[in-house]
Amino acid sequence: MTDQLPSALSDLDVAHRLADTARAVILPYFRRLDLTADNKLAAGFDPVTEADRAAERAMRALLAELRPEDGILGEEFGSQAGRNGRTWVLDPIDGTRGFLSGTPTWGVLIALSEGAGPVLGIIDQPYTGERFVGGPQGAELIGPHGRRSLRTRQTARLEEAILFTTFPEVGSPAERAAFEAVSRQVKLTRYGMDCYAYALLAAGHIDLVIEAGLNPYDVQGPIAVIEAAGGVVTDWQGGRADQGGRLLAAANPVLHAQALEILRQA
Amino acid sequence: MTDQLPSALSDLDVAHRLADTARAVILPYFRRLDLTADNKLAAGFDPVTEADRAAERAMRALLAELRPEDGILGEEFGSQAGRNGRTWVLDPIDGTRGFLSGTPTWGVLIALSEGAGPVLGIIDQPYTGERFVGGPQGAELIGPHGRRSLRTRQTARLEEAILFTTFPEVGSPAERAAFEAVSRQVKLTRYGMDCYAYALLAAGHIDLVIEAGLNPYDVQGPIAVIEAAGGVVTDWQGGRADQGGRLLAAANPVLHAQALEILRQA
Repeated sequence: MTDQLPSALSDLDVAHRLADTARAVILPYFRRLDLTADNKLAAGFDPVTEADRAAERAMRALLAELRPEDGILGEEFGSQAGRNGRTWVLDPIDGTRGFLSGTPTWGVLIALSEGAGPVLGIIDQPYTGERFVGGPQGAELIGPHGRRSLRTRQTARLEEAILFTTFPEVGSPAERAAFEAVSRQVKLTRYGMDCYAYALLAAGHIDLVIEAGLNPYDVQGPIAVIEAAGGVVTDWQGGRADQGGRLLAAANPVLHAQALEILRQA
Repeated sequence: MTDQLPSALSDLDVAHRLADTARAVILPYFRRLDLTADNKLAAGFDPVTEADRAAERAMRALLAELRPEDGILGEEFGSQAGRNGRTWVLDPIDGTRGFLSGTPTWGVLIALSEGAGPVLGIIDQPYTGERFVGGPQGAELIGPHGRRSLRTRQTARLEEAILFTTFPEVGSPAERAAFEAVSRQVKLTRYGMDCYAYALLAAGHIDLVIEAGLNPYDVQGPIAVIEAAGGVVTDWQGGRADQGGRLLAAANPVLHAQALEILRQA
């Protein structure tokens, strides 16, 4: 449908431009020491919120120019209906606690949804300069150490799997118990990686991500990247996960089925 | 004492050379997908252990050339006595679980100890290219985004503090309870950052790190960097922490005293 659009840029081009824009806007706010609590000028100034808003404003302005017919769903400024069933889903800074703490584990999440879920997604880490991209063209990592295609692992048993999560920071007690039931079965559980965990799953370094309490803009970019790399993402009942809530992402269908069975019973 | 040594290089020069060497040896092993479990050729091959050993061998060879009188304490190949009371303390890969999972949170830890604790230290993250250095010359970060001096924060109250830890992955139940008593008082607790948390503390982004079950080579590099940046590192009784065990690192003495009081009572 490119010829129906006001720009000759492909959707992938637009997604990269959005990520470039967000990166340029956000990076100056990251690790800014003049904004810490001991600076009186900084009173009432929240660098994460400022960076989040400024980046989403910049991405919305770019979409108004390049894709005026498309809808937008953003974390900061809500939903703007489109005229063609297409929606750009934006989370300028996913992992605000990581951002606030200086860890390079937060990310810019961008997805293009066509109703039946995201068809194109980006997880961008501006500080390390890593961009994980997934869509009909496949999945790849573009970063300071080069460019390579992404493929999830073929780990076949929970006993061999590496699981990542934001628990114990998120979720209800019941959700935490379900997560822990899976965690007890795996080789290694690690914490606190924000959206970077999804990127590691797509890149073939880890096997499972289990989360709860998510929003659509938290998940659609990661879903597109992981699926394009060969992974499986559902909710804890095996249904669609693109509206957020509880999420199970697995490197392959075999491992997904094993983790899902435990989450369903818990 | 430089003129007594067989090389005109300063101790700081030697520390940088060691970090350069470890970086070059280790980086090719990080995120190597041909070494994952689904590759039959990789059976029995542990890339973390291989990288760890190769890097320590290379660093020991360099010290034999540049500092033949000095002792060495390394994670992989143990202790080698020196003839002058000086010891280089080496942990080629601190955070092997992070390394195994592809997260850029592990590090090469290097320290020079002169008996009364480390006088010079480096925390190097080869993948992001960040090197955190501390010693008599001060503390600085050298990385892809430039070079700057490091200074810890002046956060004065636990209620405003950001705490990092490797709990719940480490420690006994009693140690975990003590950690959680502090965690309940702070603004934000985050998990899973390996030695990168010490670097974030030195760089003024977070306020506290609490750990247990540590070895001397896990802590001496971080202690030197954090102290040179203005922070305070002790065990949970307020004594020296350079032999490992339980560690409390704080951005400043005021905050350190508050956290220490809770850990002592717990």
